[in-house]
Amino acid sequence: MGRWEPNARGRLAEAALELYSERGFEQTTVAEIAGRAGLTERTYFRHYADKREVLFSNSELQDLLVAATEGAPAALAPIDVLAVGLDAVSEMFEDRRAHARKRQAVIAANAELQERELIKLASLSAALAGTLRRRGVPEPAAGLTAEAGIAVFKVGFERWLAESEERGMATVMRELLGELKAVAAGGHGHGA
Amino acid sequence: MGRWEPNARGRLAEAALELYSERGFEQTTVAEIAGRAGLTERTYFRHYADKREVLFSNSELQDLLVAATEGAPAALAPIDVLAVGLDAVSEMFEDRRAHARKRQAVIAANAELQERELIKLASLSAALAGTLRRRGVPEPAAGLTAEAGIAVFKVGFERWLAESEERGMATVMRELLGELKAVAAGGHGHGA
Repeated sequence: MGRWEPNARGRLAEAALELYSERGFEQTTVAEIAGRAGLTERTYFRHYADKREVLFSNSELQDLLVAATEGAPAALAPIDVLAVGLDAVSEMFEDRRAHARKRQAVIAANAELQERELIKLASLSAALAGTLRRRGVPEPAAGLTAEAGIAVFKVGFERWLAESEERGMATVMRELLGELKAVAAGGHGHGA
Repeated sequence: MGRWEPNARGRLAEAALELYSERGFEQTTVAEIAGRAGLTERTYFRHYADKREVLFSNSELQDLLVAATEGAPAALAPIDVLAVGLDAVSEMFEDRRAHARKRQAVIAANAELQERELIKLASLSAALAGTLRRRGVPEPAAGLTAEAGIAVFKVGFERWLAESEERGMATVMRELLGELKAVAAGGHGHGA
């Protein structure tokens, strides 16, 4: 019982993504995921609470974002702290584009998974707001900067995953952060 | 059968909010909501798909936001279109603060309701992005402006609902939009 399975967590996640891609999320059972990974259902539930969670174990992403933004130079303005955080996150994702595209297609096909994605983004935003407050950014600027940062991440992530997009994630995120600055400064209008 | 019930929809929503506040969301049944409103369960399900939906029938909010932003002068920059939209939405909410506070307390106590709130905000963002694109704003600026606008609305709405806040919603929203501009321009830093 409970013998150690090397990288069980990663194998289960990979097996789940394969099966969700091949058969659809709803048509796949936990037993099938465990079987594909050469593991048991019992092992599955030691690592993931349900069928959704295996696609959303983003504590790594959140930890990285918090560490990078906490470690940014104290003199940086909040918008530049966001840039540091987005750079760190982009580096983590850079060699995972094929995997991320497959995952995104599974999520796009299921409303329940889209809900979970929104919840994870909201939790990422709350963690980022906490970091900004600890850096001395007052409210409501801290909460608003965090929400705007997650907006950049969300729109940039979708763009980076587009089939036609070949630039690296860091480049895309910097472009989006530039767009946010341009829009906030009154850009993209047709008037004088 | 199906005799016309005057303002059944509004009476059900009011009864649901009262019961959710008194007993909690989970402890309340549809039969109890219908009973409190002097209506039948059958009538309830003609108006709302489930127990959550009665708190989230925000098609009025979305329609208003889309109409106001579509009708804004063509020469306005996207950020000023957001201001027009937030003004219109604020006007709608201005005399509903007590109701909105009660509703917020119910949502804050239940994870399932918080999920539904996030989904409604995402749908609001998508509708706003569509309007901006129809106004000729290119991507990714349209999607990003919409997400940033919903970020302002979300943070501003929470602030407006705070017990200590007495200013009107329009004032709070304008302050938040100003914060977004300040942050994007590099404000709130400690450095040079």
